[in-house]
Amino acid sequence: MSEKLSTQPYKGTRDFYPEDMRLRNWFFGVMREVLERSAFDEYNGPMLESLELYAAKSGDEIANKQTYNFVDRGDRHLAIRPEMTPTVARMVAARMGELTFPLKWFSIPNMYRYEATQRGRLREFWQLNVDIFGVDGYEADLECIQSAINIMRAYVADAFMFTVRINNRRFFNDVIAASAKTDEEGARKVSKVIDRKNKVPREAYEKDLLALGLNEEQIARIDALYGMSVKDATDICPESQGSQELRDLFEALEALDLARYCVFDFGIIRGLDYYTGTVFEVFDNAPENNRAMFGGGRYDNLVGLFVKNAKISGVGYGMGDVTLENFLVTHKLIPENLGSPVKALVARFEDVPYARYTAMAEALREAGVVSSVYLGNKKFGKQIDFAVKEGYTHILIMGGSEAERGVVRLKDLRTREELELSFEEALEKLKQ
Amino acid sequence: MSEKLSTQPYKGTRDFYPEDMRLRNWFFGVMREVLERSAFDEYNGPMLESLELYAAKSGDEIANKQTYNFVDRGDRHLAIRPEMTPTVARMVAARMGELTFPLKWFSIPNMYRYEATQRGRLREFWQLNVDIFGVDGYEADLECIQSAINIMRAYVADAFMFTVRINNRRFFNDVIAASAKTDEEGARKVSKVIDRKNKVPREAYEKDLLALGLNEEQIARIDALYGMSVKDATDICPESQGSQELRDLFEALEALDLARYCVFDFGIIRGLDYYTGTVFEVFDNAPENNRAMFGGGRYDNLVGLFVKNAKISGVGYGMGDVTLENFLVTHKLIPENLGSPVKALVARFEDVPYARYTAMAEALREAGVVSSVYLGNKKFGKQIDFAVKEGYTHILIMGGSEAERGVVRLKDLRTREELELSFEEALEKLKQ
Repeated sequence: MSEKLSTQPYKGTRDFYPEDMRLRNWFFGVMREVLERSAFDEYNGPMLESLELYAAKSGDEIANKQTYNFVDRGDRHLAIRPEMTPTVARMVAARMGELTFPLKWFSIPNMYRYEATQRGRLREFWQLNVDIFGVDGYEADLECIQSAINIMRAYVADAFMFTVRINNRRFFNDVIAASAKTDEEGARKVSKVIDRKNKVPREAYEKDLLALGLNEEQIARIDALYGMSVKDATDICPESQGSQELRDLFEALEALDLARYCVFDFGIIRGLDYYTGTVFEVFDNAPENNRAMFGGGRYDNLVGLFVKNAKISGVGYGMGDVTLENFLVTHKLIPENLGSPVKALVARFEDVPYARYTAMAEALREAGVVSSVYLGNKKFGKQIDFAVKEGYTHILIMGGSEAERGVVRLKDLRTREELELSFEEALEKLKQ
Repeated sequence: MSEKLSTQPYKGTRDFYPEDMRLRNWFFGVMREVLERSAFDEYNGPMLESLELYAAKSGDEIANKQTYNFVDRGDRHLAIRPEMTPTVARMVAARMGELTFPLKWFSIPNMYRYEATQRGRLREFWQLNVDIFGVDGYEADLECIQSAINIMRAYVADAFMFTVRINNRRFFNDVIAASAKTDEEGARKVSKVIDRKNKVPREAYEKDLLALGLNEEQIARIDALYGMSVKDATDICPESQGSQELRDLFEALEALDLARYCVFDFGIIRGLDYYTGTVFEVFDNAPENNRAMFGGGRYDNLVGLFVKNAKISGVGYGMGDVTLENFLVTHKLIPENLGSPVKALVARFEDVPYARYTAMAEALREAGVVSSVYLGNKKFGKQIDFAVKEGYTHILIMGGSEAERGVVRLKDLRTREELELSFEEALEKLKQ
């Protein structure tokens, strides 16, 4: 064939060259380390799932419009996973009798959503998913939020860079019902309007609430909830279970010295219907990027979609790689050098048997030193250029004359210092 | 909805529960460590690619029949990647001018093939891909084979457990042309028959060769090649470039003391047309599983599919997770305990404020000790059951009476030893 193929990746997806991959391995590694230290267990599931899994939980909109889906040769309707929660709920349901609750689980899967690409939103992305199953109390909500803050702190992000905004759906419904003197269904409609508060003009917002039967005094009472402290807000509905959960949660955050990262925010609702208690979103505080990076909440009993009479509560969050990377770049939190601190290239000359060089590289590797023989057949000057471009810190030089005298020259490419040593001495020096 | 969803994963795919994931993280981690120490760089690419990428390289059979493919809403014909080589060739082509050759790259992507599931073959699998670009000589072939052996050795696999069987396509073609007195096209047809030698009855094999114009003496001469040493075999075609490559490669393997893992095997051909030089397969030597686990070879200039007049040679191999796991299980190479060596559960009692426990767990984590508060609200006996089942090695006990006296009890769940200590002493003990 004479026509050449395109070298571009598919729209909304990315190629990860070695420098990109080092960055990703670093930030995924930080997540893993923080979560494993907190005794979370990693799991994973298949990239393809039955399409009905998403239709049942997320509604037809997400299942059909935002999901890559197709029919296989066995007439099964499949989807590439657009999120992880249905998979983990399915996995928990499948082994409900054998698993030991509470479960603290996480995963960092790749997933696909069919959408218009924009900053922070791509078609293929990776997403950390953290979930705790089998705890009804606020303790699991605390543990989730704590793990999210600990991950951010492990990136050396400070309290002025991000804020965890916390609300509670039970509290929200109760306070709306009390403020607007409406029933649960009425509160649900009002909540939909409030969820869009910052996205529509003030007049439209008020008009929608008036249409739902609220008066201006009631609207003002809702306005007053923004900016209230947890104590003042929960005093409005002291008997609400949501109020109790909020107070317990904030008290525990205070005790762990995590309250400085957190605020109560009546505006955090999270659109999805399945949230039932604590909801939270982590905001980037940078003025140029001030928006929610990720979030989550309590979503009681998704496992019930699979198992009759099951009752396993869950709380969790998802953190996408694209927004996280934007955050780390914006706040200059990416370490300068993510490569190996020492990396030695064994230069190669024609007047010494090649086997001498491979044996040197192998001895270095066995001693734990990252190393390679130069595999090409270019002149020495080109080998140095290669070493510098590829991030090697040292080059080991043994031409015919050094080989005869039983020595090597060890050149430090950062300081340009060069020493003549025995190979064993060079190895000891590189090991340090 | 009243009908419950299935909890089974899609056919030919797997759910990875925490114990499965620990195993995978271990064996993928070993690969990463060996390859990074040998200065290979990790990369990754998208799960979805243009379908034509596979049609161009692998032929329509693989592209259409074995690939999950579909048309997106923008009328693009896409495929879930069934292999990684087209992606890496595309990525190298896209940055041909900027990259510094030789490249030593690896990746551990997940991929899909539509096929009948059987032992060692699933629809979703992970595959280590190792490739070196930009080296025409045998040095890159050596480096690839060496890295494969080093990975196997890092699993503590010994020479009696696996064998690297090596051949050379250039040598093969030349020796067939010489033995069978045929031209290149004739040699290609003969090679197809020889590739199936072990899969068909002897009579059928001979009949096919006779039909291609070979006589019995020529067939006997080909038979004799099996079991020959490299020296004897390459003496038949001393002038062949393939002979020289084979001799250089085996000499270098000898010098690195790797020859004991390797044999020359005239029967290794590897079906795909694009191999041009060295080819190799790694066999499991276990009698119950004696077959090729993985392999690779030299496939000059796949980058030429993308860039006019490009000429970048490549050599690489792919190692699937399913066959590797079978190998590790068969030879009992999986370490007993892949979890954290120390894992401490902070037990919880109602007569002590919860914040005391979360602070203890957090202090342990900051000291690098894997730990968690028990998040549920069960009695102490149940908390111990939970700790044992979840692989905790220690439990920290501080009820009301211990809290009053400013002590904790540290119970080692493996030895059942229990000590009363200050929290600081317990922390020091767990850190060791």
